[in-house]
Amino acid sequence: MRAARKISLSVVKRLPRYYRYLGELLADKITRISSKELSERMAVTASQIRQDLNNFGCFGQQGYGYNVEQLYCAIKDLLGLSRGYETIIVGAGNIGQSIVKYKTFEKRGFFFKAMFDIDEELIGQSVVGVPVYSVDDLEKYLSAWKIDIAVLSLPKTEAENIFQTIVGCGVKGIWNFSHMDLVGPPSVKIENVHLTDSLMTLSYRLNEAEDT
Amino acid sequence: MRAARKISLSVVKRLPRYYRYLGELLADKITRISSKELSERMAVTASQIRQDLNNFGCFGQQGYGYNVEQLYCAIKDLLGLSRGYETIIVGAGNIGQSIVKYKTFEKRGFFFKAMFDIDEELIGQSVVGVPVYSVDDLEKYLSAWKIDIAVLSLPKTEAENIFQTIVGCGVKGIWNFSHMDLVGPPSVKIENVHLTDSLMTLSYRLNEAEDT
Repeated sequence: MRAARKISLSVVKRLPRYYRYLGELLADKITRISSKELSERMAVTASQIRQDLNNFGCFGQQGYGYNVEQLYCAIKDLLGLSRGYETIIVGAGNIGQSIVKYKTFEKRGFFFKAMFDIDEELIGQSVVGVPVYSVDDLEKYLSAWKIDIAVLSLPKTEAENIFQTIVGCGVKGIWNFSHMDLVGPPSVKIENVHLTDSLMTLSYRLNEAEDT
Repeated sequence: MRAARKISLSVVKRLPRYYRYLGELLADKITRISSKELSERMAVTASQIRQDLNNFGCFGQQGYGYNVEQLYCAIKDLLGLSRGYETIIVGAGNIGQSIVKYKTFEKRGFFFKAMFDIDEELIGQSVVGVPVYSVDDLEKYLSAWKIDIAVLSLPKTEAENIFQTIVGCGVKGIWNFSHMDLVGPPSVKIENVHLTDSLMTLSYRLNEAEDT
């Protein structure tokens, strides 16, 4: 199933959340749900839900509500989770290792094939079965294997160069944990996770609350 | 320095990014910058920058631009980074350990005092010098110590209960990595980092690009 028209990024950002809640409903063996009930669980308005889900075709039926499994599968498909993603991690330090160990990602179809680092002590090791190679071998690796997503979990001083190499080798998805903004061609999709920015937003809001 | 009026969340979310870029300018010993130059570096419009920074008072001077250090310090203060935050981590597993080891946080004034877990093998240990206690001792700990921020890096099945305990003990800041949305009283500030949601947004955008 495909959306008939271009969906705004704000709707896209809400899709994983729908997917999460629908997964919980399925686990609780709930087979159908009204937009009103779903809206109470998710703390968004029922009209927002109807509007969002209308973007992807007509799943709701008057007086019946949504078929949970059908909607779950449709959103899974929309999110591109029905296929698998070959994924590498550049930067096998603290954050990189934490990602490769995070079991949920593989359940969602993100398969970690290799990690890369400059640290001689890490190169040749493996983390939960995923081998760590030298970053010098990155280009050779990417020309031998079709990789969909590269996770960047390396210091910002090196992120830009590595990013250029990876994009040059045809990788289209970048999940960026490094502390800088990367700009690539439109065909390359970049999602940033700036942990420090998130923590600083929290401290701002704490201070603001104390002032008022 | 305080903002004269309530600042919208979208502006607040951009503040850490300003802080990051200004920090880089300072490190490069650049003492002043025009909104035009800053806009080129940050890939936002100059008028956006002027509008954002006007929220916090008048730092720019016609024909001179912004004083980098002054602006950096002002944003640091606004973000609440001039004071320190006593922080605990509930969930000393993969993500929790990765956070406590992340050196940037302490540099920004977030001090990790303790971790809590249910795993008998972790309790009594320490990670980079931070002790791991039993989650049974959480309430006692929070009544003895003034804690500003609790990081939640535990399974969603336990997140809700722990969240209620923590909020009941007066902690005002929650940095939530657990895979669920938490709702607290308005005085409690919650920042979510939903890693799986971010990765699913990336897979959506990759699929969308392949379809078009």
